[in-house]
Amino acid sequence: MNSPLQTDTTAVATDVTIDHVRAAAARLASVAVRTPVLPAPSLAARTGGQVMLKCENLQRTGSFKFRGAYNALACLTADQRAAGVIAFSSGNHALAVATAAGLTGTTALVVMPADAPGAKHAAVTGLGARVVTFDRYREDRFALTERLATEHGLTLIPPYDHPDVIAGAATTTLELTDQSDPPDVLVVPLGAGGQLAGAAVVRAALHPELRLIGVETAAGDKNRRSLQAGHRVRIPVPRTIADGVTGEIPGELTFPLIQRHVDDIVVVDDSDITVAMATLFDECKLVVEPSGALAVAAIQAGHVNAPAQRTAAVISGGNIDLPRLETLLRQT
Amino acid sequence: MNSPLQTDTTAVATDVTIDHVRAAAARLASVAVRTPVLPAPSLAARTGGQVMLKCENLQRTGSFKFRGAYNALACLTADQRAAGVIAFSSGNHALAVATAAGLTGTTALVVMPADAPGAKHAAVTGLGARVVTFDRYREDRFALTERLATEHGLTLIPPYDHPDVIAGAATTTLELTDQSDPPDVLVVPLGAGGQLAGAAVVRAALHPELRLIGVETAAGDKNRRSLQAGHRVRIPVPRTIADGVTGEIPGELTFPLIQRHVDDIVVVDDSDITVAMATLFDECKLVVEPSGALAVAAIQAGHVNAPAQRTAAVISGGNIDLPRLETLLRQT
Repeated sequence: MNSPLQTDTTAVATDVTIDHVRAAAARLASVAVRTPVLPAPSLAARTGGQVMLKCENLQRTGSFKFRGAYNALACLTADQRAAGVIAFSSGNHALAVATAAGLTGTTALVVMPADAPGAKHAAVTGLGARVVTFDRYREDRFALTERLATEHGLTLIPPYDHPDVIAGAATTTLELTDQSDPPDVLVVPLGAGGQLAGAAVVRAALHPELRLIGVETAAGDKNRRSLQAGHRVRIPVPRTIADGVTGEIPGELTFPLIQRHVDDIVVVDDSDITVAMATLFDECKLVVEPSGALAVAAIQAGHVNAPAQRTAAVISGGNIDLPRLETLLRQT
Repeated sequence: MNSPLQTDTTAVATDVTIDHVRAAAARLASVAVRTPVLPAPSLAARTGGQVMLKCENLQRTGSFKFRGAYNALACLTADQRAAGVIAFSSGNHALAVATAAGLTGTTALVVMPADAPGAKHAAVTGLGARVVTFDRYREDRFALTERLATEHGLTLIPPYDHPDVIAGAATTTLELTDQSDPPDVLVVPLGAGGQLAGAAVVRAALHPELRLIGVETAAGDKNRRSLQAGHRVRIPVPRTIADGVTGEIPGELTFPLIQRHVDDIVVVDDSDITVAMATLFDECKLVVEPSGALAVAAIQAGHVNAPAQRTAAVISGGNIDLPRLETLLRQT
């Protein structure tokens, strides 16, 4: 993470307080979906207690990423908004930034690998954003993004390492604890850590008794390894079907929050994930992408022991098309 | 409808009042899912206003049928409960009765065609019900069900033509009008009419200004034909992918309610249904079975004109497996 962009990002205030989260919730109130909390009786047997699902796959743009992107864009100054924003992502963050840009009256430029699926390119341009592609094998996306940002005076909206993005992601947990009695255990999918770091902020400020568990892939257990090492560890690009969580290193801002306020990190493999996706489809009637199913996978694999307790699992996203879902689940 | 069973059913009180609906809602409060109402911005353009989805596919057992079945079983006397109940269905009503039986401490016998898919048989027995199969080509299911009911002293739980079942189904609409400002237009999938008749009761008692629209398949437009004729008309078994709504005649109790309190009935064809199912999958991340998608299909096909108004569509069920969903949508 030696890119100048990353350094720029961390130069802003790194503290995320519960006041930031409450302010984000107020900004999101009229534009985000207050996503439902659904019971999942078929999963309850695996924890020994009750299980609820916080369905961010039903969020605007199909993932929790909308919360962070919108909050970040809503915090821009009028000048920044007039100039526009830039993001690199071919996935949920791209959809979130493009949608949030339309809602906040700014323009978004999305940097995307040239070999990203055409449907993703079309989805982002369909939302009114411009797309710039780059060659993943020859070009440095950090350098390209920085050059474009500088040339056009654009504000970078990072996918997780930004206080406003983390505060936005944290509203999932704040909302959950407002919708029902706070759970005893909260299980959260974990990639670079935006959603889990947000949960950590809410837990630390409001619900210290809440047990907080992150779930990452066995192939991409960068947070678990980093916790063991006591500092952020870089791993090889993980090979997993969970394409939303393929980063190589925990976030700079997210990792310290996880380090301080998360009780445990458990891992699941790809077959645990597809079993969870099948259960969510068949029993819960929910379309969930692989990375979105990590928390449910951990519960179903028996990694969350919470007898006589209430466990909530975040479903972080549902952006998967039917042919891919069918291909992945055919093998279960 | 000359079966003695049907006559027995109509011998009970045929009036369904809002008090019955409120009592049903109280019985269901601790066991049913308060299903979410989700915005569907991509459908809004077709009505000219806002569109919300009332997601009964996320109801316990995967369809609204749980509401009616549970309410009917909860109304049984202790003697009736001790003796057990009987239902004929290979679909959502069977799952609903089997589940409700387990919750109310009674036993269920489900009469199912011998050639129903093995998965449906297994699902119902997995819920603790007993299954009796019959040969659809040689045996009369009405006669068989009546014989079994008489022999074993079982109470028949009909799928729609029963006041307690209609009152239970009506709680969907009561709940919807409590969850958000009542919509201006309510669009409801329509088979024999249980869900729509329930909506009619709530509309008549509480929201006379609400415009109520039923949606049936073009191949199975028995309610539309019956309204035109002024009495219940029997049609040939409809050929449609919407296997939840293949009845041949409107219900005896449901039809008069529909006749009095429904503003319009519109029809959709199978291709409208698959387009709606694809939208619900891709944009709303919801698994919806063909008959469950009728209301959304009507909106998307442009049959609901409600400029500057709020339209709610009921999604009535989500019981479809992934291979069948994939097969149906491959052709869209």
